[in-house]
Amino acid sequence: MRYARLSVGGRSVWGRVGETDVELLSGSPLDGDPEVIGTVPAAGAHWLPPVVPPVFYAVGMNYPRHIEHAARLGNPAAAPDRPEVGYRANNALTGHGSPIVKPVEVEGRFEAEPELVAVMGRTLRHATHAEARAAVFGWTIGNDVSARTWQHRDRTFWRSKNSDTFKPMGPWIETDVDALAQTTTLRVNGEERASFRTGDMVFDPFDHIVEITRHITMHPGDVLWMGAESTCQIEPGDTVDVEISGIGVLSNPVRLEEEQGKRP
Amino acid sequence: MRYARLSVGGRSVWGRVGETDVELLSGSPLDGDPEVIGTVPAAGAHWLPPVVPPVFYAVGMNYPRHIEHAARLGNPAAAPDRPEVGYRANNALTGHGSPIVKPVEVEGRFEAEPELVAVMGRTLRHATHAEARAAVFGWTIGNDVSARTWQHRDRTFWRSKNSDTFKPMGPWIETDVDALAQTTTLRVNGEERASFRTGDMVFDPFDHIVEITRHITMHPGDVLWMGAESTCQIEPGDTVDVEISGIGVLSNPVRLEEEQGKRP
Repeated sequence: MRYARLSVGGRSVWGRVGETDVELLSGSPLDGDPEVIGTVPAAGAHWLPPVVPPVFYAVGMNYPRHIEHAARLGNPAAAPDRPEVGYRANNALTGHGSPIVKPVEVEGRFEAEPELVAVMGRTLRHATHAEARAAVFGWTIGNDVSARTWQHRDRTFWRSKNSDTFKPMGPWIETDVDALAQTTTLRVNGEERASFRTGDMVFDPFDHIVEITRHITMHPGDVLWMGAESTCQIEPGDTVDVEISGIGVLSNPVRLEEEQGKRP
Repeated sequence: MRYARLSVGGRSVWGRVGETDVELLSGSPLDGDPEVIGTVPAAGAHWLPPVVPPVFYAVGMNYPRHIEHAARLGNPAAAPDRPEVGYRANNALTGHGSPIVKPVEVEGRFEAEPELVAVMGRTLRHATHAEARAAVFGWTIGNDVSARTWQHRDRTFWRSKNSDTFKPMGPWIETDVDALAQTTTLRVNGEERASFRTGDMVFDPFDHIVEITRHITMHPGDVLWMGAESTCQIEPGDTVDVEISGIGVLSNPVRLEEEQGKRP
């Protein structure tokens, strides 16, 4: 099943996505079993981030080849010896089809990072590996857009990874897929820039959930972004697609922020 | 005015706090002007964190004397030359009167950090200093409980500062106070361990809001924790109070996590 959130008449509505239509739902599938209250065509839908997480977890340095690549660029990092996690911020979320806005002040490399995202469906503490598997409601796609100069110069990732629109997520949550057996592909203007096996991780999502829940209660709707093996540069005017086979394609145009910075 | 959130009959209810009673409200004062729907005595109330933020911002190294202190302990840090911000996670929030649970695996220093917290009342982007002032709905108190060994050993602050119950906040939001003209006092079992001028900051809350909103939209309910000048060790069996004059006292007992770790 594919669950999404759409903007319909200015309201945020959950939907179940079919081949050509989206069945609108009376509530969140994370809270129970909602009823169908209407239908809209999938074409032309205004896609929102499929969930606004209570906590937004993000894993860094989780693909062996990404770690090697960072080392070649002069940012040596040891492969993690245990699962650790960081955070991103909800203000940065945007949906499938909405623009990634590059701030006018960004200099240097501005990059896309294609990531698998686990969406939690249960409240969980002190989970076993089996409980972690059972607690994942489904899977979506994230693009961990990053401004590298800020990332390397600032004390934290606050603006390098959390500026408005830097976290496209979607288009939907797929509940029936063996997510770690898929292929992640990154395209810019239709041209392939990277392709890697989604499951080639140092520690998988369930390893992370077991470790996190030793000390932390995870809640329905929490998301866990799993890191990327490869990244690529994006520029205003580009359209960047992240595809994970069996899940879908997250596509976003890139725009330059308007001078003066007042948002439209 | 003092606004709080209480657990009443298992539900979370906003309230307006008076000398002896709390008037229960029909909704959030952040969303409009709620009606009074009942009254309960303040004594014996079950206090929740006064808000669950869309984004939980936290400032580090923001008091000149804290930076000097860290340097003496062998953790030299330059004073920040511009306002920067990190994040904490909502799972860690707990209310006034609820226990801080020390994980059995924590070794070394386990510390309280008394902090002023700004609560946003408006949606804000590209704010001027005056707009930043006008956008703060009110002020509350935070205790940025930290497990130092984890803080220094881990790649991120995920468990050192975000384990369950590590972020007491409350007891309420005070809307009518000159927060930067107050005194912050930290007590353990009634004994004063630290006292400092709340406003002796490198960059104040409005400086941070101006800087954050250059790239980020802040939303009603977002919180901004402002850092601490002094910290102190806490142990199971202690009761730790953070007082900020003109706002109130945030008091929490400290307990050791039960073996096996299953939460009560």
